[in-house]
Amino acid sequence: MPASDHLEALLGAMSLEEKIAQLSCGGRAYEMPGIIDGDGRLDADAFATAFPDGVGQIGRLNVRRDGPVARELADQINETLATRSRHGIGALFNEEGVHGLMGRGATVFPSALAIAATWDPDLAERVYTAVAVETRARGANYVYAPVLDLARDPRWGRVEETFGEDVHLVTQMGRAAVFGLQGRPSDSRPGAIATDRVLACAKHFVGHGVPQGGLNGAPVQLGRRELSEDHLPPFVAAIDAGVGAIMAAYHDLDGVPVHSDPWLLTDVLRDQLGFTGMVTSDGFGVPQLASLQRVAVDDTDAARLAFTAGIDCEVPEPRGAAGLADLVRNGRLSEEVIDRAARNVLLVKQRLGLLDAAAVAATDPPTVDLDAHDRLALETARRGAVLLSNPSGFLPVEADRRRTILVAGPNAEHAHLGAYCDPSAEGIGVLEGIRERFTAATVTFEQGCRITPERAGPATWWQDEVTLADPALDDEPMDAAVAAAASAELAVLVVGGNEATHREGWWFDHLGDRASLTLEGRQDELVERVAATGTPTVAIVISGGPVDLHRVVNAADAVLWTCYPGQQGGTGLAELLAGDIAPSGRLPVTFPRSSDQIPVYAGRRISAGRGYLHEPADPLFAFGHGLTYTDVTTVLQGVAPASLSVDDLTAGATVELDVEVTNTGPHDTIEVLRVTVNDRVASVTRPTERLVRFQPIEVCGGSSERVRLSIGHDALRLLDRSMRWVVEPGAFDLSVHASDTTHTVRVIATP
Amino acid sequence: MPASDHLEALLGAMSLEEKIAQLSCGGRAYEMPGIIDGDGRLDADAFATAFPDGVGQIGRLNVRRDGPVARELADQINETLATRSRHGIGALFNEEGVHGLMGRGATVFPSALAIAATWDPDLAERVYTAVAVETRARGANYVYAPVLDLARDPRWGRVEETFGEDVHLVTQMGRAAVFGLQGRPSDSRPGAIATDRVLACAKHFVGHGVPQGGLNGAPVQLGRRELSEDHLPPFVAAIDAGVGAIMAAYHDLDGVPVHSDPWLLTDVLRDQLGFTGMVTSDGFGVPQLASLQRVAVDDTDAARLAFTAGIDCEVPEPRGAAGLADLVRNGRLSEEVIDRAARNVLLVKQRLGLLDAAAVAATDPPTVDLDAHDRLALETARRGAVLLSNPSGFLPVEADRRRTILVAGPNAEHAHLGAYCDPSAEGIGVLEGIRERFTAATVTFEQGCRITPERAGPATWWQDEVTLADPALDDEPMDAAVAAAASAELAVLVVGGNEATHREGWWFDHLGDRASLTLEGRQDELVERVAATGTPTVAIVISGGPVDLHRVVNAADAVLWTCYPGQQGGTGLAELLAGDIAPSGRLPVTFPRSSDQIPVYAGRRISAGRGYLHEPADPLFAFGHGLTYTDVTTVLQGVAPASLSVDDLTAGATVELDVEVTNTGPHDTIEVLRVTVNDRVASVTRPTERLVRFQPIEVCGGSSERVRLSIGHDALRLLDRSMRWVVEPGAFDLSVHASDTTHTVRVIATP
Repeated sequence: MPASDHLEALLGAMSLEEKIAQLSCGGRAYEMPGIIDGDGRLDADAFATAFPDGVGQIGRLNVRRDGPVARELADQINETLATRSRHGIGALFNEEGVHGLMGRGATVFPSALAIAATWDPDLAERVYTAVAVETRARGANYVYAPVLDLARDPRWGRVEETFGEDVHLVTQMGRAAVFGLQGRPSDSRPGAIATDRVLACAKHFVGHGVPQGGLNGAPVQLGRRELSEDHLPPFVAAIDAGVGAIMAAYHDLDGVPVHSDPWLLTDVLRDQLGFTGMVTSDGFGVPQLASLQRVAVDDTDAARLAFTAGIDCEVPEPRGAAGLADLVRNGRLSEEVIDRAARNVLLVKQRLGLLDAAAVAATDPPTVDLDAHDRLALETARRGAVLLSNPSGFLPVEADRRRTILVAGPNAEHAHLGAYCDPSAEGIGVLEGIRERFTAATVTFEQGCRITPERAGPATWWQDEVTLADPALDDEPMDAAVAAAASAELAVLVVGGNEATHREGWWFDHLGDRASLTLEGRQDELVERVAATGTPTVAIVISGGPVDLHRVVNAADAVLWTCYPGQQGGTGLAELLAGDIAPSGRLPVTFPRSSDQIPVYAGRRISAGRGYLHEPADPLFAFGHGLTYTDVTTVLQGVAPASLSVDDLTAGATVELDVEVTNTGPHDTIEVLRVTVNDRVASVTRPTERLVRFQPIEVCGGSSERVRLSIGHDALRLLDRSMRWVVEPGAFDLSVHASDTTHTVRVIATP
Repeated sequence: MPASDHLEALLGAMSLEEKIAQLSCGGRAYEMPGIIDGDGRLDADAFATAFPDGVGQIGRLNVRRDGPVARELADQINETLATRSRHGIGALFNEEGVHGLMGRGATVFPSALAIAATWDPDLAERVYTAVAVETRARGANYVYAPVLDLARDPRWGRVEETFGEDVHLVTQMGRAAVFGLQGRPSDSRPGAIATDRVLACAKHFVGHGVPQGGLNGAPVQLGRRELSEDHLPPFVAAIDAGVGAIMAAYHDLDGVPVHSDPWLLTDVLRDQLGFTGMVTSDGFGVPQLASLQRVAVDDTDAARLAFTAGIDCEVPEPRGAAGLADLVRNGRLSEEVIDRAARNVLLVKQRLGLLDAAAVAATDPPTVDLDAHDRLALETARRGAVLLSNPSGFLPVEADRRRTILVAGPNAEHAHLGAYCDPSAEGIGVLEGIRERFTAATVTFEQGCRITPERAGPATWWQDEVTLADPALDDEPMDAAVAAAASAELAVLVVGGNEATHREGWWFDHLGDRASLTLEGRQDELVERVAATGTPTVAIVISGGPVDLHRVVNAADAVLWTCYPGQQGGTGLAELLAGDIAPSGRLPVTFPRSSDQIPVYAGRRISAGRGYLHEPADPLFAFGHGLTYTDVTTVLQGVAPASLSVDDLTAGATVELDVEVTNTGPHDTIEVLRVTVNDRVASVTRPTERLVRFQPIEVCGGSSERVRLSIGHDALRLLDRSMRWVVEPGAFDLSVHASDTTHTVRVIATP
């Protein structure tokens, strides 16, 4: 029997209750008392009693649990489902994994934003492959990643979870993440997700990265063209890559909450984009239709709206779904809606082999090489850091020379790992990394000043209440740091934000967005006072997104920025300081001068460019900015053809850009070539510069590399007045941007 | 022959060239060398040669000219058209008049934003009636007002030209302005505009008040529901009031420049809203389709797009329209487009009697009572000022007591009149006003600090280049002001912005938007240092829109804000200080704490309300805020009915709110009652508080007034999921806001 017939037969054999049971997550494993105890052991009887009709999902087996415990729990649940539910359908085990599985002992990679700063989709694919393998080895099979939101408001607390602000960069990194998590689609077993991979969930559909005021979940204001041109393409690519699940976003778009919007969830997502997987709610996104957005009278009414609109399953618990059966029995909801949702859930379960829970429980876990993942975390940390300024070439610092180094600042002592890590997660901080790397030096530490009174880290990310440190209490630590700097030969100041001060603001009692981008507390003052001692001063900025660095940049001899750099962050940053490798990260987000300039991001329409009267309108650091230690010369050797027809473009013809990159300096480096398009005249107002291609290229010191970049229909097209994707005849200026220069050529598309 | 037949016959008799001649403004009278000389005299031969086929409009007769000169020029032009063009069609003479005719010697009323702060549509109607009479008396017949944009980004330089941020307030004030300018529609002569009124032009259609980044003309991002619910209603009301012209906005909406958008200019404006008047371009809005937005290859191509989309005439000169005849002859534009545009132009000319230029030239001008207008300017200045803070009741100041008063600050010495005034315009500044009112006192003046190096005023509004004052040069003036304050009994500091620092940024070389809302220069410091002397300190803030006043409010004993208060501003403000009248203005715009919070305005959807982590999300002063000198007690005496059916509402039934306002204090005052609606559950996400009614009510000291407010269908309706205006059954919380308290009652709409 073909798989689809099997699924339809199964669906036909299921009762209403059994189908509805598939449409929600039964709970989160760390808070299911009476069913799962504090040590992660299952009470199978209690489970069977709680879920007599089976269960769609169980959440977060791995949070606060070691891998073997989670794995055992998963097997027990599937065995119980196999033996004590009528159809023996296994569970989806959803986990957080935006930059590493959220589980005790799992590898913590740099934040997604730092991964994006590598501009290397292959690296991203390797990272998310590692996430998948670790997750599957620990029993779970479904990860809430990647985040495909365009982070265009730096006040928003979730910028760190994204691949940045640009549609093309996010699209490419997102596609790579889906490949990594689920594996590349296989011709031999189409749709199947291998036993060392997991179901991916692209989120948050759609437009979630531009909330009003940067306030998480706030209304989004977008026209349909901007929605289609900027916010949908990452999802189109994820669907093309085979992504199995897509998560609805919390916000309302033009007054309609996405969780209740049949236009977005069905007309656009299913009919227009052709998505055939499972649409999940965001956590409590269904009841929020009643409690927050007030388009439903209660949770059951919310479920009616949500499932009718196109939601297939509710997480993390059946707040609204609990009422689905009554809705059907009372005639307020068609059973066809239930059937559709159940079919979509079972379809993704089928891709994971979960229709036979017994077989799944008996499958051996994949082997995990944690050392290799640790090395991958280190590689990503190195690659994800961006050298923002180094005006007099102070960096790199010779590591083998004896000297005294002061390390100071609130982010120096401990590793900062960012959002969605296990509360127990640890890593190598910058202080430790410098001590390990600069063994010939005397390394001293002073805090200097604080951001939060307590040590911040993954645990504080969870806490609702956040208190900022009392600046008055920093008088002494500040004086001590300045004094220590005066007698040191080098000061490394590690500043920025932390997991308690910029994060997902998920409810009114758990805020996370910021209004000002100014560094908290007295960090600017610390950098200025230390630099004023005359001791060479390097600032390492670790933050969840763009912050206002104008004072730091003015004061410090060099500034290196990274989003949370993962468990090997301190090692990687110390190696960059020492010049073991040259920085190659490029900003995946614009750094404004302050909140005053918001919105300021790459790819805005040309008409956005008029300036402010008294203040610059250009940002402090543009999207794509990033320096290195070596000298690179880029030459555009050829462009062919300079003219081609729209028909040929439509048929697949391309303009080939032949670029030569020469590294005349001593350090090996990775240059990131970026191609932007400037459409000279079009039927709609176009961006001044729109990123259409990028390629990281490794160039050893003293050598050259030749790169060919193909510019085709997809790079030149636009959504015309009739909302059709077309290439319009006319002139296009193509610019190749490298760290040394920008080359621009004009190409003509003929009618 | 009926008027419409006459018009069609005329159209049929006109050549292509004659019709096209109606579709543009021939130029601005102050820069038509060879045709109009420096003294405003017409060379009739040159005019007839330049415009052999007639002319649609001539602009700005009155700028830099006295009334009689302009009047004479208008008559000469019409006589020339009557005798030397084939059809003798008179010209529209367009003028700026957003708060008074822009002409030498015309009355300068407070800025539109100050008029809005009165919350008194009747007063607005009287002001715009005065503008109309002065304009018509001086020969012109067409005024570019009112501005109906919702000013929701305080960085935008044109906030002063608007009636504020709120759809209901803007709608009511805008309708009143149309009534004032054109006269109320008459049953006896439908459509006719009387000889003491002018054609009004509602602008900028549509969404212009929410440009990206607050940058004038930048792209606007709006969904269609928000466009229809918030930005269209003021235009709907203006059309209902009979407005004859509507101006297209410069921006692009979702990638489509309004000037080229047939959906907005025809489908929405004509077919949906039923507008039958003339659609004008904004100044150079047609060529900007090529030069700025690049949706056209050149000016002629721009004209093809614009006129096809629905533009009927181009101003201020025929940049694109010059190519229309060739476009028609070459078959690139249908003559039907020309006919439609010409018909619309002739229709408004018919309303003004302009189809017979000879008769117009022979009509006597209306009589102008400039003294009455001066008194009206004073009344508006008094009413438009908002008492923001007065925590210990320091204000009012007894005027008849002998004392020394220091007046200081950059806005004290000269009148600040704001945008679109004749360069020669003058008025009474605060220093003069205080000297006149506080005759018993010794009034001294110190500048304290400066905003711009030169005196700012209407003339600097025109200058492209703006330099801020060098703060270092303010050391001495600041010390002098502080010393003078220390020995005075009262310090009045007049701070804010001026015509050079926040204004319309109309091109890349004439910027006008601001990024930061912080007061320029050392104004905050001036207020703080003066207040620190211990001398009671009153801050009068004069600015074009919201500024960051947190330091001023913290330091000063009382803060009074007004937008540019017109030619009698100093008098009115001094009278308010003295308590001759009690302040009654209410903020028509939200005052944020800083740019960090943008956007923050009244009527945002309920889901916008989550806060920031470290900083408040609520503004410094909310929309509607305003204090007074007396004690008001508001009682909601009755609500009836508490429940009514949707059908009854649709048929016109209302909920009557019976409100009693008692003034227990000594001062007469004007209370502004405001009613907001909170829709408890709806099919779309609704605003937390939506203004639906307001009424200013004069209450003498020691007396009571009873007010009845009717809440009907229009106040409870929404655009549902199908974009239909409906009242949905359910609960509505109606809140009556007054200065003392808010009363909330729940009303039920039954199915």
